[in-house]
Amino acid sequence: MSTKKEDNMKCLNLDNINPNFIVMEYAVRGPLVIRAGEIEKELEKGVKKPFDQVIRANIGDCHAMGQKPLTFLRQLLALTLEPRLLNSPDYPDDVKERACALLSSCQGGSMGAYTDSAGLEYVRRQVADFIKERDCGIESDYLNIYLTGGASPGIKSILSLLHCHVDNKTPGVMVPIPQYPLYSATIAEYGMCKIDYYLDEDNKWGLNCKELQRAFDEAKGDCQPRALVIINPGNPTGQVLSRQNIEEIIKFAYDNQVLLLADEVYQANVYDKDSEFHSFKKVMYEMGEPYRSQELVSFLSVSKGYLGECGIRGGYMEVINMCPKVKAMLTKSITASLCSTTAGQVAVSALVNPPRPGEPSYELYNKEKTAVLSALKERAELVHKTFCSFEGYSVNPVQGAMYVFPRIDLPPKAVEAAKAKKMAPDALYAFELLESTGICVVPGSGFGQLPGTYHFRSTILPQTDKLKLMLEKFRQFHSDFMKKYK
Amino acid sequence: MSTKKEDNMKCLNLDNINPNFIVMEYAVRGPLVIRAGEIEKELEKGVKKPFDQVIRANIGDCHAMGQKPLTFLRQLLALTLEPRLLNSPDYPDDVKERACALLSSCQGGSMGAYTDSAGLEYVRRQVADFIKERDCGIESDYLNIYLTGGASPGIKSILSLLHCHVDNKTPGVMVPIPQYPLYSATIAEYGMCKIDYYLDEDNKWGLNCKELQRAFDEAKGDCQPRALVIINPGNPTGQVLSRQNIEEIIKFAYDNQVLLLADEVYQANVYDKDSEFHSFKKVMYEMGEPYRSQELVSFLSVSKGYLGECGIRGGYMEVINMCPKVKAMLTKSITASLCSTTAGQVAVSALVNPPRPGEPSYELYNKEKTAVLSALKERAELVHKTFCSFEGYSVNPVQGAMYVFPRIDLPPKAVEAAKAKKMAPDALYAFELLESTGICVVPGSGFGQLPGTYHFRSTILPQTDKLKLMLEKFRQFHSDFMKKYK
Repeated sequence: MSTKKEDNMKCLNLDNINPNFIVMEYAVRGPLVIRAGEIEKELEKGVKKPFDQVIRANIGDCHAMGQKPLTFLRQLLALTLEPRLLNSPDYPDDVKERACALLSSCQGGSMGAYTDSAGLEYVRRQVADFIKERDCGIESDYLNIYLTGGASPGIKSILSLLHCHVDNKTPGVMVPIPQYPLYSATIAEYGMCKIDYYLDEDNKWGLNCKELQRAFDEAKGDCQPRALVIINPGNPTGQVLSRQNIEEIIKFAYDNQVLLLADEVYQANVYDKDSEFHSFKKVMYEMGEPYRSQELVSFLSVSKGYLGECGIRGGYMEVINMCPKVKAMLTKSITASLCSTTAGQVAVSALVNPPRPGEPSYELYNKEKTAVLSALKERAELVHKTFCSFEGYSVNPVQGAMYVFPRIDLPPKAVEAAKAKKMAPDALYAFELLESTGICVVPGSGFGQLPGTYHFRSTILPQTDKLKLMLEKFRQFHSDFMKKYK
Repeated sequence: MSTKKEDNMKCLNLDNINPNFIVMEYAVRGPLVIRAGEIEKELEKGVKKPFDQVIRANIGDCHAMGQKPLTFLRQLLALTLEPRLLNSPDYPDDVKERACALLSSCQGGSMGAYTDSAGLEYVRRQVADFIKERDCGIESDYLNIYLTGGASPGIKSILSLLHCHVDNKTPGVMVPIPQYPLYSATIAEYGMCKIDYYLDEDNKWGLNCKELQRAFDEAKGDCQPRALVIINPGNPTGQVLSRQNIEEIIKFAYDNQVLLLADEVYQANVYDKDSEFHSFKKVMYEMGEPYRSQELVSFLSVSKGYLGECGIRGGYMEVINMCPKVKAMLTKSITASLCSTTAGQVAVSALVNPPRPGEPSYELYNKEKTAVLSALKERAELVHKTFCSFEGYSVNPVQGAMYVFPRIDLPPKAVEAAKAKKMAPDALYAFELLESTGICVVPGSGFGQLPGTYHFRSTILPQTDKLKLMLEKFRQFHSDFMKKYK
């Protein structure tokens, strides 16, 4: 007889751990992605497959798909982490000056020291200057800037701040459907209510304020709506909101007293010639009072845009019009995590204070940045055009961000087959795609979608040659799939 | 009349935000530290003070206090973040080889790619090898290793996992008093119960298992004790637990079915010649069944030890004997934060896979490491000896970690004066110290202490010359303080 503790004798088992951990799902890294990892290991071991590599089109991970880091940013990181290089003639003076300024803003002149919990004051001021320039001169106060390890920890700390049962009602957060699963996962983790509002697929994933009001009114009985999440440019849907649409959303938030959370991490990723990024802050300020005083938090990250530095973990949030006493509590709650990584803070500095025309680094910086953005634009058009030509696909244009989110008209037999396997029909589609081509996408059910519709999200990140190859494989798979389930 | 929203009209105010945010405190970065920052700004502006700089002895921030980063670690970071340097003759081959191996373990060969949520498999395997070597050959499975951004996020994710109301009882976590305030802050943030057990100051801050049982039994009526936190070597108390003591603790945890959380971030910081670090894992394995199957999580970080790289944010946890289904939920919950910073993961790799004798980097590495550790040992003895000579001080030796935690016999008049100001008496002491000398320490009340006793925590981190100066100023202040309140 074993004296080892059986699972049901353990201190921790499924019956006595945080029930929210059991409920939460995070599709972008869900079972499909785990299977993709297994397949990669099988390929390494020499298992024969109809393909020789997995194409990870499931996650907005630019460098993993071959995008090269910008020289300027990596030089700045190397100089700040290894200050001996400041003596090397191989680094341009403007980067050295930036590195010296960053180092003197660190305690003890070292990136190894903790920073203030909200980040280095020097970088927070740079962020405020960047926002002011972006928003055509509208002031930004560095005290409203919190540096974060990517956008996610900032979003999580704001959602956690909202966690209060008012009048015995669970707090609710309005999220777009389809949405980025960080929101659904965090809302589940915190035991809050997710209030779904649907984006209008027939109108290029636009946002209809009547739908916002419907969602709000229907939820109000069951929970206390506290915040409205907007993702612009959209993930997974790729739309770019018009200025007028943003005004309507701000009015809605003001009228219904909900905090606005503007996930603007794709603000540099706009490809459509008729679209333009408008920050919620700028529109709100231009609308004047009373909307000018609406509470708003906006997020940006170094993981997207043209840097694509996902692994470094750098980002910021700007917290606008928050009651100072509440802001003090937010700040206090952040102190227990000490500070975000200094490498991430340097990356944010690189993002918001790039080389200017005339500086030695400018030319290369601009060339690299432009190359990344034009390649993304080219691929945005390519995936749209290609998927449009697939039988049963309807595809909105990729106006911005890094994803395409086609709707597939799945044959009834495929839907039945999925039901028999207790899978979502688009998950069946994505699993078959993965097993037969090595292409890993995320089923629409991971983001949410109108009941009865089926989608998937693919990134536009594989390098153009690889993307073309992927799309050809995809076409073949789709055609076979349609035949199989005809 | 203003149309601006007044504070009480805001979406968020003190009555409707997360009440746990209001309750939580984090003394290491509390009001005293905020005041220290203000004083620094006043000094910059030219305000006259009886001192010309603030000495931040409040936080274990090695580099901020002048400790130099280890060359090996910074070279590894520079090479991985700026791979062009791999062609430079200025870097030793062993560091280059390590950098190449790390880069090929990243997707796309770039530190800018996301890693697995638990971290790079390559680094997790290195951690497992390190633990095996540390624990004299006891196996470590890399699948039990999670790379984290410093120790704190790991500790927070485990505490969050425990958050379950069993039989309608709030989950409770046993923490030492005095304790590191991350625990009290996180337990408050999650609305859990803190169960205090007192360390025995008269016995060099040793841990008496009868006291553990008393705390457990008394708490059991009000809450459901789920976990026991041990900090070894101790923070703020500097003790190093004996092997026998660790065995007793393991027996206690097993008998009472609580998860063991071993905060072992100071494992390399042992100065006392009669003390030795024993990992909980090793002792547990050596005790054999049934203790061998006890659930345990152990934490390590690159912020302490001899690296002191606080700002980089690197660390790991080893999760032992956890039910696989529960571990799957833990893993899932971590995915929503994507991954810890790659720079931190490289730093962990440097910690667990240092240069070996015979490798080109070894000599310098060993010299730098030894210098840091001997300086810390020297200062541990210096602060102990000096504080022992102060009137009304009783001071346990600094066997390990980075702090001294003297008890001060405060004069009744000082206690009354504090009461009149609605301050903790040791906070009054620390505030007067700060205002008159610029020395910033943390009052014992921020860590918890036996009612009626007063302490403060000072780091031993100022460089030796500065430390001597600080201790002299301290002596003068203390003597003046005692006269003032005689």
